[in-house]
Amino acid sequence: MAKASAGPEIERLIQLLARLPGLGPRSARRAALHLVKKREQLLAPLADAMRLAADRVVVCSACGNIDTSDPCAICVDSSRDPSILIVVEDVSDLWALERSNVVNARYHVLGGVLSPLDGIGPDELNIAKLVERAADPVVREVVIALNATVDGQTTAHFLTEALAHLPLAITRLAHGVPVGGELDYLDEGTLTAALRSRTAL
Amino acid sequence: MAKASAGPEIERLIQLLARLPGLGPRSARRAALHLVKKREQLLAPLADAMRLAADRVVVCSACGNIDTSDPCAICVDSSRDPSILIVVEDVSDLWALERSNVVNARYHVLGGVLSPLDGIGPDELNIAKLVERAADPVVREVVIALNATVDGQTTAHFLTEALAHLPLAITRLAHGVPVGGELDYLDEGTLTAALRSRTAL
Repeated sequence: MAKASAGPEIERLIQLLARLPGLGPRSARRAALHLVKKREQLLAPLADAMRLAADRVVVCSACGNIDTSDPCAICVDSSRDPSILIVVEDVSDLWALERSNVVNARYHVLGGVLSPLDGIGPDELNIAKLVERAADPVVREVVIALNATVDGQTTAHFLTEALAHLPLAITRLAHGVPVGGELDYLDEGTLTAALRSRTAL
Repeated sequence: MAKASAGPEIERLIQLLARLPGLGPRSARRAALHLVKKREQLLAPLADAMRLAADRVVVCSACGNIDTSDPCAICVDSSRDPSILIVVEDVSDLWALERSNVVNARYHVLGGVLSPLDGIGPDELNIAKLVERAADPVVREVVIALNATVDGQTTAHFLTEALAHLPLAITRLAHGVPVGGELDYLDEGTLTAALRSRTAL
């Protein structure tokens, strides 16, 4: 901006908001103005919520989840099946699986996938800890719930080998037609996988 | 969300972020996760910037601009031409004109446009104060810089009449082809206006 017409405090707010994913410089200005107009209802509560999150949120030392306690609420939840460990790439994937409300197991967040070109090898990921957790006799199955991308599948293969010495079932999410999906819009790889894994009606 | 898997602090952060313009529930989750991961670089500074803005930002009692001082920095800027008053609908329009860096006058923020269907009449807008400011003998021109929409133009006509008794030039922004615009994509109203106001090359 040529002039700091909005005052340095608002300019700084705009600059920080523009660093959020999904907000560019233009929408950051719009968001800042909206915040300033709704000072009591939105700006002050959001400032407090951010301060609270900044002060309290920690990474779970067991599974890599993000929570306000360590170990996290999922790791200490005794109602969850301790025999299943679901490996995900990122906390957002853990949230997505929790929203589906179908699993009642524990997780292990890798913090990324293997990507040699980006310099991400096994040591950059939370893999040693996974092998350590999976070696606990109570764990009977490791579900590898990584994205169905090249890097995700490479990582899945690596994990399978890293866990091969343990008496575990190692599984992965099924490939197939997304619920609500139309065949005409799906790629051939998905259709091939869906056909191969067809089930009896 | 079915379960508060992310803890109540993060859930609350997500809910508040989702109320920003341009962010939905999904992108609010993504933004919250990004914030929590960049706690030191982004979350804590943003919390501080919001707290500062919430504590300090005020509406200028003279022009309706948003700033950390009242009267605002623009109103007290003695380098600005006091004879011109630019009427805008919203602070975002003021910011847009300031970014263009071509004006060096003062502003008057109406806080909206007349819209009888939404119950917005002259008393809901910052119009009485405009008439009062325009009556200052130092003011020689009022530029009505409202959006070229039906409501904006209705409001412009209303303001013209409200200011008619004063010895002022009342002007409006030119209509025409946007710089960089292609004729083929412009509506007929814009083309008609651009032709009527054609200038010598």
